[in-house]
Amino acid sequence: MKIAIDAMGGDHAPKEIVLGAMKAVQAFPDIEILLIGNEEKITSYLTDKNRIEILHTEEMILATDEPVRAVRKKKNASMVLGANEVKEGRADAFISAGNTGALMAAGLFVVGRIDGIERPALSPTLPTIGGDGFLLLDVGANVDAKPNHLVQYAIMGSIYTENVLGIKNPRVGLLNIGAEEKKGNELTKKTFELLQEEKINFIGNVEARDLLSGVCDVVVTDGFTGNMVLKSIEGTALSIFKMLKGTLMSSMKSKLAAAVLKPDLKGLRAKLDYSEYGGAALFGLNAPVIKAHGSSDSNAIYNAIRQARDVVKSEVITTIKKAIEL
Amino acid sequence: MKIAIDAMGGDHAPKEIVLGAMKAVQAFPDIEILLIGNEEKITSYLTDKNRIEILHTEEMILATDEPVRAVRKKKNASMVLGANEVKEGRADAFISAGNTGALMAAGLFVVGRIDGIERPALSPTLPTIGGDGFLLLDVGANVDAKPNHLVQYAIMGSIYTENVLGIKNPRVGLLNIGAEEKKGNELTKKTFELLQEEKINFIGNVEARDLLSGVCDVVVTDGFTGNMVLKSIEGTALSIFKMLKGTLMSSMKSKLAAAVLKPDLKGLRAKLDYSEYGGAALFGLNAPVIKAHGSSDSNAIYNAIRQARDVVKSEVITTIKKAIEL
Repeated sequence: MKIAIDAMGGDHAPKEIVLGAMKAVQAFPDIEILLIGNEEKITSYLTDKNRIEILHTEEMILATDEPVRAVRKKKNASMVLGANEVKEGRADAFISAGNTGALMAAGLFVVGRIDGIERPALSPTLPTIGGDGFLLLDVGANVDAKPNHLVQYAIMGSIYTENVLGIKNPRVGLLNIGAEEKKGNELTKKTFELLQEEKINFIGNVEARDLLSGVCDVVVTDGFTGNMVLKSIEGTALSIFKMLKGTLMSSMKSKLAAAVLKPDLKGLRAKLDYSEYGGAALFGLNAPVIKAHGSSDSNAIYNAIRQARDVVKSEVITTIKKAIEL
Repeated sequence: MKIAIDAMGGDHAPKEIVLGAMKAVQAFPDIEILLIGNEEKITSYLTDKNRIEILHTEEMILATDEPVRAVRKKKNASMVLGANEVKEGRADAFISAGNTGALMAAGLFVVGRIDGIERPALSPTLPTIGGDGFLLLDVGANVDAKPNHLVQYAIMGSIYTENVLGIKNPRVGLLNIGAEEKKGNELTKKTFELLQEEKINFIGNVEARDLLSGVCDVVVTDGFTGNMVLKSIEGTALSIFKMLKGTLMSSMKSKLAAAVLKPDLKGLRAKLDYSEYGGAALFGLNAPVIKAHGSSDSNAIYNAIRQARDVVKSEVITTIKKAIEL
């Protein structure tokens, strides 16, 4: 299996990308990796070339680039070349920690949609208190979603969660402002009806306040709302840890107690760190495409590679194709 | 000034409502309070009747009642009678910690909208790290909002924040999936254009992850998204404190350190407790109506009364009427 990686995307590229790739090659004997980007820069970190190739290019898409235009104009950007590799079948999956909008555009215009899928969904796995996490789709690929799009997210999310995460008969919830059936806006009311007719384990509406408690395994929502919820959870966690740090440093007494608790608090923070759960998959495309977090370190890249490998091995794309054809 | 309060609404009614009312009467010499509900139950907690009257009724709206039907059928419910008091001008403001949907219905059908306001907004003040908080409108009064509704929220929110919270030229932000001007869904793109034409301090799009950092003073969004963001923030904070508690109790060593930190951690939690900021105002109605949190204790009720008094004293409703007429 060959996994193509945009070596130039993300805040810590190419160093952390290269380190993550080397770690993954050691862990998984069945993978080869293609690093795409500036060969000289990549080589300076690549201490072990075993099963790692480089596809050299000078061009790259920046975080500040306008996504659609960048993908159309920068034909030799590392991200566009990576998307091409999976499109042409020379690689089995593609990973980038670069510009999210550009990766969605490259997925749509270069890799292409699965026949019958109307809109792809960007889908991270978020942490839960119990540690299993939940899949949230969509978080921004499609901001003006229709009920049928959400139904397709539910199907794709169920397949991924069952086949890759190994959760039998995953519980699918519709994100809504209340748990009762008649609650919500026009979109969720119509979607609720449609989801009841699907062959998935639809458990009804779920509320945003119950997500981290693990109320269900797959949460479907429109990309605008999903993005808001994702960023609210992120922002709240960051703010609380910031305040906690300030509190713990406020006196000599609390500093001493904090020193004792440091390993425990680090563990808690790691539990909330969703890079442990891999990257956000772009579901609905003809090949596996994974968006790693922009601030990814080598461990996050390693986890995204593990995730891409699991998606390929468990034939998620083929299963989605068959489910959509029905 | 007379403030009417639904003595039967909320998880701890009537006890905490009565205690909060007595505390407020002592603090503010210029207010009288009308407690509406079961006289016998109210009296059992009412140790000081100074400037507190009771309007007796046996009927009440339950948390489980279907909101609109309950308001229409239960004409003598404490909540409906309270709404009537402000409508008829016998009271200057109305507070309830009861069924949120029913209070919005009572506001709409009994108290009535300000001429020219298309939809009322339910607007809590949420905490920020710096402690000033921000006003969020709407969190669920209107789940299928139009651009013009959001513009009216921005105007009403600016007036409240300036006149009641005393923030000069409050910064108004449009909640969106990115800070750039062209970002968002159909609703936010159109709203962005309209907000630029208004005489308010519109600072552009704001992202959910920056809200608790105090990126602006007034945040406008549709009721569906606002409800999601509110509940995501609440749920994340609760989950983190739960996990923190588990971590601190995990060993003897950490238990000892936690005991030292207990007051500091309690202080942090209080900082995030939005009952300190009063209740959620229902803006756009002909009289001040405040929704106190369902789990309100006497302190939260006291704060909601203080807030209602501030709204009446600063003539927010009159100012909104004038601004909307323009």
